[in-house]
Amino acid sequence: MEQNLVHSNERVDDLQLNGLKLIQNPDWFCFGVDAVLLADYAAKNIKKGSTVLDLCSGNGIIPLLLSQKSPAGSLIGLEVQPEVADMANRSVKLNGLSHKIHVKTGDLKEAPEQFGRSFFQYITCNPPYKEAGGGLLTQADPVRIARHEILCTLEDVVRVSSILLEPLGKLCMIHRPERLIEIIDCMKRYGLEPKRLRFVHPYPHKTATMILIEAVRGGKPKLFLDPPLYIYQSPGVYSQEIDEIYGRTQERKETL
Amino acid sequence: MEQNLVHSNERVDDLQLNGLKLIQNPDWFCFGVDAVLLADYAAKNIKKGSTVLDLCSGNGIIPLLLSQKSPAGSLIGLEVQPEVADMANRSVKLNGLSHKIHVKTGDLKEAPEQFGRSFFQYITCNPPYKEAGGGLLTQADPVRIARHEILCTLEDVVRVSSILLEPLGKLCMIHRPERLIEIIDCMKRYGLEPKRLRFVHPYPHKTATMILIEAVRGGKPKLFLDPPLYIYQSPGVYSQEIDEIYGRTQERKETL
Repeated sequence: MEQNLVHSNERVDDLQLNGLKLIQNPDWFCFGVDAVLLADYAAKNIKKGSTVLDLCSGNGIIPLLLSQKSPAGSLIGLEVQPEVADMANRSVKLNGLSHKIHVKTGDLKEAPEQFGRSFFQYITCNPPYKEAGGGLLTQADPVRIARHEILCTLEDVVRVSSILLEPLGKLCMIHRPERLIEIIDCMKRYGLEPKRLRFVHPYPHKTATMILIEAVRGGKPKLFLDPPLYIYQSPGVYSQEIDEIYGRTQERKETL
Repeated sequence: MEQNLVHSNERVDDLQLNGLKLIQNPDWFCFGVDAVLLADYAAKNIKKGSTVLDLCSGNGIIPLLLSQKSPAGSLIGLEVQPEVADMANRSVKLNGLSHKIHVKTGDLKEAPEQFGRSFFQYITCNPPYKEAGGGLLTQADPVRIARHEILCTLEDVVRVSSILLEPLGKLCMIHRPERLIEIIDCMKRYGLEPKRLRFVHPYPHKTATMILIEAVRGGKPKLFLDPPLYIYQSPGVYSQEIDEIYGRTQERKETL
């Protein structure tokens, strides 16, 4: 079965979580720690049976992880690049999760027409972090599309989420600290109240390089700040929390 | 001289900085680490000869510290409670700094009439952290006024600062993380762009309990996030940075 689903230019990675596998194309954008952190942060607040949407879904890593880490009922990924969405759906099949996960091809700006208002209880997004800059759209390859706001902006993600979420539904994103003010300002303008915020630091004493933020549609103002998350505790040694998020606790305990 | 300036119910604290002394009334609100952190954070960005205003100035700790830590030309404190402003001015005299620091009595909401528009290059504020709640104004004692938004709100501070600051002038505040979203939202609404943000944690691995934030009137959006500031490195032991901020580095080095 695997051979039919995986193309010759692709590789299959073991996600170290209940045997989950992910097809990736090394020429495109491969998943990083940010996707794993986002899925873990979001999973804590996804209610049983929820309908969850993942915007900018890429290779489908987020819905795949959420299928194991959260009690979501149905997981929909939305990916603008047809060949990337196709690869994601082959990963879904490879894992036998087609009953639960569907990655659709589409432009998120048109998602309200596709799904209707107030359709989702929870939305995740690991969006392009960087502004589009001066590059030409014709130079848009899958890597640039994943990294730069060429096909969707932060405001697109927030605006569309505010329409797609039911009241008190939640949007969870991972992004860069330098855009925190813009993110908060944008969320407030679209009626999404930031309620949970966590800074991710490479090491203790180092400046945070990522933020995890969750906003509630129509939520009351009051922020809950999480303790900092450190990736490494010392050079080359992951922190205990990262090991737990990656499901390496057991292994760690066994070797202690 | 000291005896004439210090009342019988007051005490004089040594600020461990160039011999600076501070008169405090233990029945009122005494300065804490937040004032020291705010002065240190603000001092880095105050330009030589600047005219600086400290709102909610209390016992005058911020202008006193800034007179030593920054190259400000003139420091004005504004304090709504006349008896507290009087005590602050006695501290100024005690330190022989009357040529540089003036603590005025006044309601910050009327400060634009008092000082005029675009008068200051830099404004600091260690405001009341908590919302007013249901207490009666008649129960307002100096401690409640310093802690609760009874006589001025966050919005008052930001709105008034946006008028008093010259273009590209800066507002620096210390506040609580649970109000971060409100602070950012309010600053944006009044044309103050948050540009520097620092979280203060009691220990590494613990959630931040204070934030330092600096906004620029008419600044361009882009946040610079500082590395985390930890108060303690282990129980009862201040971090090296806190020792440096409190001017204890020399002592520390001598005992090493």
